Order: sequence, then C-alpha cells, then structure tokens
Amino acid sequence: MKSLSVALIQQKCSSSREENIIKTEKMIREASASGAQLVVLQELHTTTYFCQVESPALFDLAESIPGPTTTLMGQLAKELAVVIVASLFERRAAGLYHNTAVVFEIDGSIAGTYRKMHIPDDPGFFEKFYFTPGDLGFNPIKTSVGTLGVLVCWDQWYPEAARLMALAGADLLIYPTAIGWDSCDTEEEQRRQYDAWVIVQRGHAVANGLPLLAVNRVGFECSQQQHADEGIQFWGGSFAVGPQGEILAEAAQENEEILLLNIDLARCEQVRRVWPFLRDRRIDEYNDLLKRFRD
Amino acid sequence: MKSLSVALIQQKCSSSREENIIKTEKMIREASASGAQLVVLQELHTTTYFCQVESPALFDLAESIPGPTTTLMGQLAKELAVVIVASLFERRAAGLYHNTAVVFEIDGSIAGTYRKMHIPDDPGFFEKFYFTPGDLGFNPIKTSVGTLGVLVCWDQWYPEAARLMALAGADLLIYPTAIGWDSCDTEEEQRRQYDAWVIVQRGHAVANGLPLLAVNRVGFECSQQQHADEGIQFWGGSFAVGPQGEILAEAAQENEEILLLNIDLARCEQVRRVWPFLRDRRIDEYNDLLKRFRD
Repeated sequence: MKSLSVALIQQKCSSSREENIIKTEKMIREASASGAQLVVLQELHTTTYFCQVESPALFDLAESIPGPTTTLMGQLAKELAVVIVASLFERRAAGLYHNTAVVFEIDGSIAGTYRKMHIPDDPGFFEKFYFTPGDLGFNPIKTSVGTLGVLVCWDQWYPEAARLMALAGADLLIYPTAIGWDSCDTEEEQRRQYDAWVIVQRGHAVANGLPLLAVNRVGFECSQQQHADEGIQFWGGSFAVGPQGEILAEAAQENEEILLLNIDLARCEQVRRVWPFLRDRRIDEYNDLLKRFRD
Repeated sequence: MKSLSVALIQQKCSSSREENIIKTEKMIREASASGAQLVVLQELHTTTYFCQVESPALFDLAESIPGPTTTLMGQLAKELAVVIVASLFERRAAGLYHNTAVVFEIDGSIAGTYRKMHIPDDPGFFEKFYFTPGDLGFNPIKTSVGTLGVLVCWDQWYPEAARLMALAGADLLIYPTAIGWDSCDTEEEQRRQYDAWVIVQRGHAVANGLPLLAVNRVGFECSQQQHADEGIQFWGGSFAVGPQGEILAEAAQENEEILLLNIDLARCEQVRRVWPFLRDRRIDEYNDLLKRFRD
C-alpha cells in the first residue's frame, strides 16, 4: 500500500458515439502519459445522457459485455498498463438492461463489473425506464492497484452503499456520475443541490475512513424532445477527497478536464486508528435498516 | 407542521455543578424570552467533560432519572412552555451508568429519554469506562414541537443512527456533543477534524432529507491529572442545517452563545419529493449492514 496516481476524466459528450470514444481514448492516453495508474471515466461516457426522455428506440444505444467498448477499453488498459473504470449501458438480454461499471485490469482482462443498484427516476432522469436495478450486490472489485468500491451516481446518496463497500474491504470509493442542473431551478436551489452532492459524498469518506473519487459529466445537453434551450447543464466538478473528507482535488464546473492526483492509500490506517468507527457499530440494533420504513 | 423557533445553547463548564446549572438556566430563560420553542443543551452540560481521565470517584457526578437535574429542567420547561433537550450522566444502578439525553415536554413531564448507543474510547475520551452502551434503541421522541431524533456525540459519525431515526419518522436530527481539539495535533489536522465533524453531520441531513442541530461544548478544560496546559479545547461551532445540508446558522468556536433560528419543518416534504432517497433503498441487499465486517 502506497501512493496511487489517479486520473478522473470529466468530458462533454455528443450524440456521436465515435466522437465520444475517440475523445475518451485521447484523454486516457494523456492521463497515462502523466503517470496515472488508475483512470476513472464518468457515467455512460460513450453517449449523451439519454435518460432525459423515455424512448424505446434509445435501447439501441446499449451494448453487450463483452462488446465493442469493453474490447477497446481492455486493449487500452493493456497497452498503457493502467486500471480503467468504465461505465456502460449494458444489454444483458432483450428487455433486460443495466447501468454497469466495468473495471479493467492492466493485462486487459475484466477485473469485475458492478451493476448500479439504486435507480433514480425524476423529471429529466427517467432511469427506471432504462435500467433494471443491479443484481450483483455491493461488492468491491479487486485490482492490482487496490480493492475498488465502485458505485454509480444515484448510489452516491446512500450511506448504506458506501458502508457495505467499506465493510467488504474497499480501499477507495469511486462514483462515475452524471448530474446537473435543471435551468428552471433558482440559482439558490442550484447551489444547494451542488453543495449537497459534494457534502453527502465527503460524508461517506468520513464515516468510512476512505478516500473517494467522484467523476461527473460536464456541459449542456438538450433534452432532444422540446426546445433547444431545455435540458440539463451537467455540473462537472469532479473531485477527490481523503479519508477525513478533506478535498484533495476538484475539477472545473464548465470545462472538460483530466484531474490528476496522488492518493495516499496508507492514510486510511492512521485515520481509522484515531476514529475507529467500525469498532463501535451497534450491529445488534441495526435490524430495522432492512425495513422500508419503521411504521 | 410549520416554522419552529429553536435555540442551541453552547456553554463553557466549570467543576462547580451549581455554577453550570445556574448558567444553563439563565441561558434557557434568555432563549425563551427570544421566542424559542425548542431549546437544546450540549452533552453533559452540568459538569466538565470528566471522561478525560478514568477515575472511579467520578461516578459521584452521576444522578438518577428522575433526579435533581430532571426536576429543575421539568420545572423550567413548564414555566417557560418550551421543549428542552437535556443531557445527563445517568446512574441507573450501582455499576450501571449511561450517557443519557432527556427530553422535557412543555407541561414539565419527561417526553422521552435516549441512552447514547455508540460509545467512543480514545486518549482523552475514556467513555467506555463510564458509560454502558444504550439499550433503548434508536427511537425518536414525540413532542408537541415535532418528533425529535435525539442522538448523542459519537453517534454523529454513524449514518446508521441517523437513518434509523429518519425511518422512524423523525422531523429533526439533534446531537448534543462534546468534541474538541488535542493541542498535540497540528493545525492542519485540527482543521481536518473540525471540517469532518461538520461534513459528516451535514451528510446525514442530505441523505435523510432532514434538518439537523448539533450543539457542542466550548472552552478549554484541563485534564485534571497532568500539567495545567494539557486538556481539550472544545471547539464550539454549534450549527443548524436544513434538509439539503445547507447551513442555516453557526455559532462561534471560542465563545458561549445562544444560537437562535427558525426551522421550516415543511421543507422536508418538498426536498424529499425532488430527492426521494427513501423510495429507492435496496433493502433486499442491505443484510450485511448487520455484520461487523464482510470477511
């Protein structure tokens, strides 16, 4: 366990899959040339955030695993000897699709996959139409650079998800994400939402004594269905924090960026000695966490 | 459900119980005169933070419930028609003590008690010597001003505790606290600890869509055993946040203070409609939260 060089790749996406893939590959190569050992991509990086509308035709965007994107990512991981966390719209069978993160080992093999467990659904984010809730559980993925607690977007609001990853020995929490502002909201509300998004994830880092990476999409994407100025302004702001929730690095809110930093994986041991939260959990009194509501 | 006027009372304590009680009473009267309907006191407000050392003689500081402090607080609650959250070193039986919060109704009766569930123990905070872990579970207390999710200090680092209170219908999370800096730590480490303390609690507010009050002790208390300059600098900084974790009010880090503010209890409904986290919890996959570790 030592210092790990990581890169968070925050990009804009167009409706051209080819354009997106070419850009991602270019950024991965740049990150690797800068020394990154672990590269994390944003949620659904090969496409626009298509869940702004519900359309059966959009299932055409999905692909199988293995498939063209995993083949390319595996080749890149091997050629550059980096671990890559990618995020795909997975077609598992006719009528069965998932929002899936895939982790590639430095030999090009798939180290593991995680299917998004918590699926949101609200105006502009119609994910329950597209994604079947994950059935692989909350299990971190072992790689040569550490055990990665990979979760996806909406999962980031759930302390349960982060805790289960920590309890399974994750060295790092990782969230590929696609979140942004609705232009109908006031500036105040937009600020509160952005802050809440940062805070809740920093809170997971603190509660579990783990470093955390959040990689978010950036740029405006129109909803395709209505007026050209309607859509989501993805707020970028990808960030990395240490095991006390301290900000280590933060990307811009408007531009594409490769956010590079070193993470000291050994600090978790020191922090947890001072704040040994895992020691004192009242597992004898947590049963009701398995209930929908205590009524 | 409407606007609730609350007061957080942040005070310094001396070794004189009488002095502490007189001061607390004065501050409660002042808060009430300013319109407070709910007054929250800090952890163990009748004494210094005696857990800096382990000494059997210090069990003399404990008192029964009902006892002198609950009698006084009940009288004050009734006279001023305020709900009071107090915090006591409870003597339940010989050799059986708890760190207990007591909530008083506006008729002077005890609305409910909460015995601190998570007990810390680290240098300067030898709580496992004094306090038996609570056996009343994580149950919010119903009062005329709302259902209060009262937790105590070390509980504030546990997302499980906040979640269980939210699932049981709490309108508000409340943390009487005694936390401070060890002067041996670097300024950087002190800053990280303070920020982590604020962040993890703001995270609970976000994850549960609930307002939250944290009331902390302030001032230096020497450890009584060693040199006069050794001890804990309690960092004050009592604060209140709304259901998106947004800061509503924040007290000083060095001085006693009555922090007054209004809380809009109806906002929870709006916030949870936009971010309905409770809807999507994967209770079918949370079983391992009941394990110590997933190994």
